[in-house]
Amino acid sequence: MAAAALLLVAALVALGSGHGGEAFDPNPLQDFCVADATSKVRVNGLSCKDPAAVVSDDFFAGADKLRDEVSERYGFSALTVQIPGLNTQGQRYARVDLAPGAIFPPHYHPRAAETALVLEGSVYFGFVSSYPDNKLFSKVLHKGDVFAVPQGLMHFLYNNGTAPATLYASLSSQNPGLVLLADALFAGALPDDLLAKTLLTDKHTVDNIRANFRPS
Amino acid sequence: MAAAALLLVAALVALGSGHGGEAFDPNPLQDFCVADATSKVRVNGLSCKDPAAVVSDDFFAGADKLRDEVSERYGFSALTVQIPGLNTQGQRYARVDLAPGAIFPPHYHPRAAETALVLEGSVYFGFVSSYPDNKLFSKVLHKGDVFAVPQGLMHFLYNNGTAPATLYASLSSQNPGLVLLADALFAGALPDDLLAKTLLTDKHTVDNIRANFRPS
Amino acid sequence: MAAAALLLVAALVALGSGHGGEAFDPNPLQDFCVADATSKVRVNGLSCKDPAAVVSDDFFAGADKLRDEVSERYGFSALTVQIPGLNTQGQRYARVDLAPGAIFPPHYHPRAAETALVLEGSVYFGFVSSYPDNKLFSKVLHKGDVFAVPQGLMHFLYNNGTAPATLYASLSSQNPGLVLLADALFAGALPDDLLAKTLLTDKHTVDNIRANFRPS
Amino acid sequence: MAAAALLLVAALVALGSGHGGEAFDPNPLQDFCVADATSKVRVNGLSCKDPAAVVSDDFFAGADKLRDEVSERYGFSALTVQIPGLNTQGQRYARVDLAPGAIFPPHYHPRAAETALVLEGSVYFGFVSSYPDNKLFSKVLHKGDVFAVPQGLMHFLYNNGTAPATLYASLSSQNPGLVLLADALFAGALPDDLLAKTLLTDKHTVDNIRANFRPS
Amino acid sequence: MAAAALLLVAALVALGSGHGGEAFDPNPLQDFCVADATSKVRVNGLSCKDPAAVVSDDFFAGADKLRDEVSERYGFSALTVQIPGLNTQGQRYARVDLAPGAIFPPHYHPRAAETALVLEGSVYFGFVSSYPDNKLFSKVLHKGDVFAVPQGLMHFLYNNGTAPATLYASLSSQNPGLVLLADALFAGALPDDLLAKTLLTDKHTVDNIRANFRPS
Amino acid sequence: MAAAALLLVAALVALGSGHGGEAFDPNPLQDFCVADATSKVRVNGLSCKDPAAVVSDDFFAGADKLRDEVSERYGFSALTVQIPGLNTQGQRYARVDLAPGAIFPPHYHPRAAETALVLEGSVYFGFVSSYPDNKLFSKVLHKGDVFAVPQGLMHFLYNNGTAPATLYASLSSQNPGLVLLADALFAGALPDDLLAKTLLTDKHTVDNIRANFRPS
Repeated sequence: MAAAALLLVAALVALGSGHGGEAFDPNPLQDFCVADATSKVRVNGLSCKDPAAVVSDDFFAGADKLRDEVSERYGFSALTVQIPGLNTQGQRYARVDLAPGAIFPPHYHPRAAETALVLEGSVYFGFVSSYPDNKLFSKVLHKGDVFAVPQGLMHFLYNNGTAPATLYASLSSQNPGLVLLADALFAGALPDDLLAKTLLTDKHTVDNIRANFRPS
Repeated sequence: MAAAALLLVAALVALGSGHGGEAFDPNPLQDFCVADATSKVRVNGLSCKDPAAVVSDDFFAGADKLRDEVSERYGFSALTVQIPGLNTQGQRYARVDLAPGAIFPPHYHPRAAETALVLEGSVYFGFVSSYPDNKLFSKVLHKGDVFAVPQGLMHFLYNNGTAPATLYASLSSQNPGLVLLADALFAGALPDDLLAKTLLTDKHTVDNIRANFRPS
Repeated sequence: MAAAALLLVAALVALGSGHGGEAFDPNPLQDFCVADATSKVRVNGLSCKDPAAVVSDDFFAGADKLRDEVSERYGFSALTVQIPGLNTQGQRYARVDLAPGAIFPPHYHPRAAETALVLEGSVYFGFVSSYPDNKLFSKVLHKGDVFAVPQGLMHFLYNNGTAPATLYASLSSQNPGLVLLADALFAGALPDDLLAKTLLTDKHTVDNIRANFRPS
Repeated sequence: MAAAALLLVAALVALGSGHGGEAFDPNPLQDFCVADATSKVRVNGLSCKDPAAVVSDDFFAGADKLRDEVSERYGFSALTVQIPGLNTQGQRYARVDLAPGAIFPPHYHPRAAETALVLEGSVYFGFVSSYPDNKLFSKVLHKGDVFAVPQGLMHFLYNNGTAPATLYASLSSQNPGLVLLADALFAGALPDDLLAKTLLTDKHTVDNIRANFRPS
Repeated sequence: MAAAALLLVAALVALGSGHGGEAFDPNPLQDFCVADATSKVRVNGLSCKDPAAVVSDDFFAGADKLRDEVSERYGFSALTVQIPGLNTQGQRYARVDLAPGAIFPPHYHPRAAETALVLEGSVYFGFVSSYPDNKLFSKVLHKGDVFAVPQGLMHFLYNNGTAPATLYASLSSQNPGLVLLADALFAGALPDDLLAKTLLTDKHTVDNIRANFRPS
Repeated sequence: MAAAALLLVAALVALGSGHGGEAFDPNPLQDFCVADATSKVRVNGLSCKDPAAVVSDDFFAGADKLRDEVSERYGFSALTVQIPGLNTQGQRYARVDLAPGAIFPPHYHPRAAETALVLEGSVYFGFVSSYPDNKLFSKVLHKGDVFAVPQGLMHFLYNNGTAPATLYASLSSQNPGLVLLADALFAGALPDDLLAKTLLTDKHTVDNIRANFRPS
């Protein structure tokens, strides 16, 4: 289980870290501000390489970089397409793989809308609106289908088929952030009684659920 | 229980509805664009009254409009400060009341940051970041204290004192939206097996929790 | 030739029309503002359907809608992914098909950055910066590769292989616009002597080129 | 009088300085970019601390920090709520105290709208629009009332009661700026004849007024 | 005097009205959204003409439209360059004429920065910052010189030469707004005692000044 | 010819370089962030001088700095008005001179709208829309006339008179960028066969045109 948690963390850091990104971001003020991985300057977004040192590969990510083992916990992997040239360009991309039966559990991006294209397999994709209240919008998607999630709304993927599924997700910020609802509730330091009240249940049930969210 | 659910829905609609709102919103293009409650035109945001018909009360909300019964379910009420003149001004305000022992359960605003001032009582206030991963930032706040939650991050209130607590929340969009995590998971139409997989538990546990999120 | 021109125009209108769009756009002020195709109200962007009437299909585009005959002129097709729910969400998507030897000629989007994923085949993809001056950034892309073009810069696709190529393009505005450089110069009403001066050549050469850009 | 001027300057610097701020600001590109008080890098906004070093207190301001002596000149104090975590979050807050009879003289914020809640006492609050031309919108506010001022418009507070009044002001930029009209006209280096022409009066009247705006 | 006041109001309405505009505005979501003078729809900004009905003159303003009699009160005229095609384009322009000895009194634009080019004559141009506190930045400008005023800061023009002066002002919003400080203080309905306190003077002095700001 | 190319490059660098700029840019977060020419920090936009070191000349450009020899190639010069105080203010200005018969060839700004005022002479000014498709909007402008080009659209100037013409161009970004269509196609490293396909012509014609775009 610890290994699974580790894998998941790796995926989350890949998607949620400060190095990558997408839309509703501040507009660019030059042709490109390619992220400078060596800079120690910390600003809103990332500081830039010398434009004279920018090369074609700064705008490129090869297909070979986009596969990973899926997590034991949920059976999915989510890898950010690493393109330093996307800094200031209001976009981030990710490849998501789901084993048969796997889910990408309910989550949201604090700073982005998301649209996904199915590359392989089929998947049940849904989001929940805040107004109308908790209304589910969902579709079973097949290869080539596209589905959009408005900015900040909770959404999920469920591969309820028998073949692996792969999606290509486009996010409208260079650093959309990723919050998995179950992890936000159970993996951190929220008090047990707060969780019991939140779920309208008892601490015993909370503890049982929580046990699986912590490395043994 | 049905009454409690109703009350909660009232509060949520008050905060999450299309009529009110606040920051990172598009800039205003005139002194004011006071929301026209009678208009049938639907655009991004709200259409405006004739500026010649705008009056001082369009920018005013009286204290008497800001109290409400708390919900049975969680013991809190959250009422939007209704100011039609805030349309296009990138702000919304809400008054939150918490009975002793009550919580405003973990939630987030898809389109806003939030800062809250404690008007009465004391409250445990926290938020969880997405990077660093699921890290809790929290404080026990007393009267006059202020605490800020970055855009889109999950946060909660817990009145773990013996007196009622009241807060004044400022949100950085004219329509921040509100997603309660437990409601998003359990009150809508998400499949049971998806929820069981999400919580790393079984359908029986999911059904038990879910029962309390549906009106009898 | 007239038929080819017509096909091309169809593709351009699909990508450049007022109904669809993506990033650096004004932020949304509600969960969704699904484009209302029946509205006669004209605003920046598109007016919205009643949120109560919004359905899952407003966020969906099926794979079957994304194929088209390629133009005779250049051998490519470019079809916008039609998703009315993307209004106010700062994104637009397009599928691009290129026959062997075909090009998507040099063009730019006045209001968007673009990132493309190769779905099938291989393609030579490049863009030219304005600073450094007229510098070419380019790659030969294969299936699964991703390449990014900063906001507003001129770019092109060239299928110099022997198999058809297909790309999925993500643009950072709900309505990025499309300007083909050759069409902008030769297909409209620019004076011949202006074009001759622009190309540092004579009117005869201009007329010869121009003849092919006008329906016979 | 010099002491009073000094106090006022302290209050202004607290509100108008480069360290604090709020809405219509550029969107954040990470969960938080907590202002780094030790950085010597100067950019639009403030540079950030290492996210690993961020603590709960970076989002907190205690009530004890929000009281100050009022200025002799106008009888008010205005203290920014110091929260380094608000950098990039499009918000700033201030506490305003007014002695009986005191005013917060006509002023505006070059980069923000403002909404204020009355915490204690009562106050006459007004703003003047630019279109319609020089129209006054105003209310007498009591404890718990809220009043909003659109972005950039001139506004003022007047405690015409017999008890001290306190307000909590929310501004829609992390650094709204503060321009007091009388100080902008009389406290700086504007030529006397320009001021006389501006006020449709003579230099003698200008000199008499001006004398009070300069430390003896 | 009434006639002078009328003329001034005409000029102010021309610059400050809801029909015209400039920068930091929401981005455009189509090539153009030319303001539709006949529309009764009121939104943030202005609604648009049918793009098929747009003509070259929608982007044009002739030199003959840019002259006006100067006001008796201050000796200046300020006429907006009327270009309906600037709706959604984040810009507005104005021509300013100053008779010898005339001033464009201290004012600010709630929603724009301004840069001005001297077309004829010479002029003393200055602005006052909010931080550093009330610091004057100024230059005597001659024909062809350019001077810039940051967003929202108070600025003024003074033709202290012997020839008429003309400037061309560029503002960074399609509707920057205009607040003349003296008019905002004296021409509206602000209470006399508030003004006396504001100017650190007595009501008698206030009444004397005020008399000139009201039509007899 | 080499000298002409050099002159042109000088003009382009002046307009398109990373040091200067204008609108739809991120909003300012302080009164001013005057560009610091000595800083080695690279961010979106430019880093700032210490506000205490800012002087009036940081907002000023003298008329004497705005003349230059026109290029041999096209007969125009385009010089950016150098004002370091425009950093973060969403504006850039340029002076354009055209000899009789000269053109400023078809070009666009990837990050800005543009409005131009004719200072001397007359000029044929036009732009081409992307929707409606390749439609020309144009006017012959005389001294004092103003014409506007929407964000990102291709436009050109043609002095078809017998006297020199001068324009003052206002752009809505601090760094709009400049792409000359002919240079983007012919001056860089685009493959000959791509160009031949693009122009619907043969390589021989392409080579003939291209020869003039390269220094001998």
